[in-house]
Amino acid sequence: MIEFKILKKSKKSNARLGILKASHGEVETPAFVPVATQAAVKMLTAESVKKTKTQILICNTFHLHLKPGERVVKNHGGLHKFMNWKKPLMTDSGGFQVFSLGFGKDFGINKIVKSKTKGIIKKGQQPKLLKITNDGVFFTSYLDGRKLFLGPKESIKIQEALEADIIFAFDECPPPFAEHAYLKNSLKRTHAWAKTCLNVKKSKQALYGIVQGGRYRDLRIESAKFIGSLPFNGFGIGGEFGNKKRDMILMLKWMNKELPENKPRHLLGIGHPDDILSVVKSGIDTFDCTLPTHYARHGIAFTSEGRLDMTKSIFLSSSIVEKKSLDKNCDCLVCNNYSRGYITHLLRAHEATGPEFLTFHNLFFFNNRLEKIRLDIAKGKI
Amino acid sequence: MIEFKILKKSKKSNARLGILKASHGEVETPAFVPVATQAAVKMLTAESVKKTKTQILICNTFHLHLKPGERVVKNHGGLHKFMNWKKPLMTDSGGFQVFSLGFGKDFGINKIVKSKTKGIIKKGQQPKLLKITNDGVFFTSYLDGRKLFLGPKESIKIQEALEADIIFAFDECPPPFAEHAYLKNSLKRTHAWAKTCLNVKKSKQALYGIVQGGRYRDLRIESAKFIGSLPFNGFGIGGEFGNKKRDMILMLKWMNKELPENKPRHLLGIGHPDDILSVVKSGIDTFDCTLPTHYARHGIAFTSEGRLDMTKSIFLSSSIVEKKSLDKNCDCLVCNNYSRGYITHLLRAHEATGPEFLTFHNLFFFNNRLEKIRLDIAKGKI
Repeated sequence: MIEFKILKKSKKSNARLGILKASHGEVETPAFVPVATQAAVKMLTAESVKKTKTQILICNTFHLHLKPGERVVKNHGGLHKFMNWKKPLMTDSGGFQVFSLGFGKDFGINKIVKSKTKGIIKKGQQPKLLKITNDGVFFTSYLDGRKLFLGPKESIKIQEALEADIIFAFDECPPPFAEHAYLKNSLKRTHAWAKTCLNVKKSKQALYGIVQGGRYRDLRIESAKFIGSLPFNGFGIGGEFGNKKRDMILMLKWMNKELPENKPRHLLGIGHPDDILSVVKSGIDTFDCTLPTHYARHGIAFTSEGRLDMTKSIFLSSSIVEKKSLDKNCDCLVCNNYSRGYITHLLRAHEATGPEFLTFHNLFFFNNRLEKIRLDIAKGKI
Repeated sequence: MIEFKILKKSKKSNARLGILKASHGEVETPAFVPVATQAAVKMLTAESVKKTKTQILICNTFHLHLKPGERVVKNHGGLHKFMNWKKPLMTDSGGFQVFSLGFGKDFGINKIVKSKTKGIIKKGQQPKLLKITNDGVFFTSYLDGRKLFLGPKESIKIQEALEADIIFAFDECPPPFAEHAYLKNSLKRTHAWAKTCLNVKKSKQALYGIVQGGRYRDLRIESAKFIGSLPFNGFGIGGEFGNKKRDMILMLKWMNKELPENKPRHLLGIGHPDDILSVVKSGIDTFDCTLPTHYARHGIAFTSEGRLDMTKSIFLSSSIVEKKSLDKNCDCLVCNNYSRGYITHLLRAHEATGPEFLTFHNLFFFNNRLEKIRLDIAKGKI
């Protein structure tokens, strides 16, 4: 179970400073939640992740169900012991895969987000590789073509075996540009599943309900009111928000206004550095995102000077450039001990320590950013 | 410069217990030297390597000359600063590439070693991709096809820019199954180059001469006598030894008998766990080998139970098997914190931390093995 205590509410925005107490320790909020999809933050050992100021991780139920399977994790005494992570953990519900392996895949996630076409998905329409019913979703395993069924009962059962501190209700993460009628129908299912999840859960894990509703104000508010009225321990906000960042922040404000004030709010899968401050100001307490780890594996460093593509030979071009650290304002292990030149050398020589160093720095950069935001809320600056 | 002190000589064998003092610290010998080809131990940060009981590393001059180039390394203040490794360092001379990119490549290194055909390479014969002259070797860059020339002068100049504590003389590492006349001619070149290296070196780095001679007793003894008579700070033993392990140990004994007793002896590129004890007993003080790091990247763990292929699903097959550590007799960070099941999961899920954990454990296993051997020499058991 968790306890959530709000230490301070901002007077200038809806930002809140808080402490989320879980059985594996405390999380100072607002907090960034790095993603450990397959029970591992890509490129980093648990020992390294601890040094990036990371307070909590989120693992992926769908992936772990497929590989290695929850039986193996349960046999180890749960995810904490399996992956040697002693701090708090979340697992998602698998609901995002309904989107990413469904309509997201059919249309190309980015193409959908960039498209302005509304209502391209009609009520009753099914994605190519999934079948969505009122009981749950039939998946085809990307590993071996095996047929899988995931519904609210199955998701909770798997998440109970995985033993994270915080688990999520199973939802349909709908495509953002579906028509209103599709989204209304989808929301009905997600709301029914939310109640099932609450009913079937036996463990003492904290359960978060998920608010959906696509890009429609009426549906988002309806969902926040309904999910917010149920006895969840916290709330997740899911779904795609379209291509305008301002729209997302607006929607977050609508929803957060409807959600109970004393319970924690988690934003699922969003966290571009440019958005972090607005997300916090809208009243979000935690958010997860693959951005810092994913971009690191493509050679990108997030720094106080902005994004740097460290694969470029410019970083090996002159005595001055070569010897600079990734970020002169960063105090992480990488910035204290390694140069831009060395990191670029590693990336260009295909050494795994190249992306490893960028992953480390990027996580530290994100966590540090949140630490500064917490300080600013405490000081009344935000 | 280095100082080498023999603390104890075995009465049962030619093994010696010693201390090699370099400007970046002391190395207790006999010692294993992990390979950091491109100024990085593959899969591990310098911080991690330190925790594997590693005392000294060897980097590859040829690779670093190509990428990032010695200018970049020199600009950083040498390899130690570039790669954040504060303990002693060696660089090889590039001589092994004369073999690996030359005849080794033409015939397939393993095929040559496994073949029993003697004298397949005749005096005057040239490999396909290299041209070996009395001044040095013309290479073609594997990166961009650029023509490169490496001779004793060039090798020392590059190694001086890299600033390792111990550097090696440029040699021709000849194919093991070349005919006697080829090897005799090659040895003449290597011996002339050894003198050139001594003459051109300006730095205070320790310089090791390299003994060659293929599989012929007369040539090996001739080379050890000649190289041993020159004012080197230590000696490397290079070359391929054919396919019989007994032959290698025999040859090492011939050579070590001829080399000055008070100077350190390094065996280049050899170090299978089965051979380590015999190599030490022959009188070798240090040896480098890619085996523990290379095999780790292919899923292999070296343990007190022997070699384990951790990619096999057997390690995810039952409650008891899954939860065991890699090696119950190992006290490394990986064995103390992670299970066989988790490591197999990481390898099968293509997470980089899988090979990273195996690299860490394998290096610890090798270094631990040497620590025990040193203890046994001290106790008079070896």
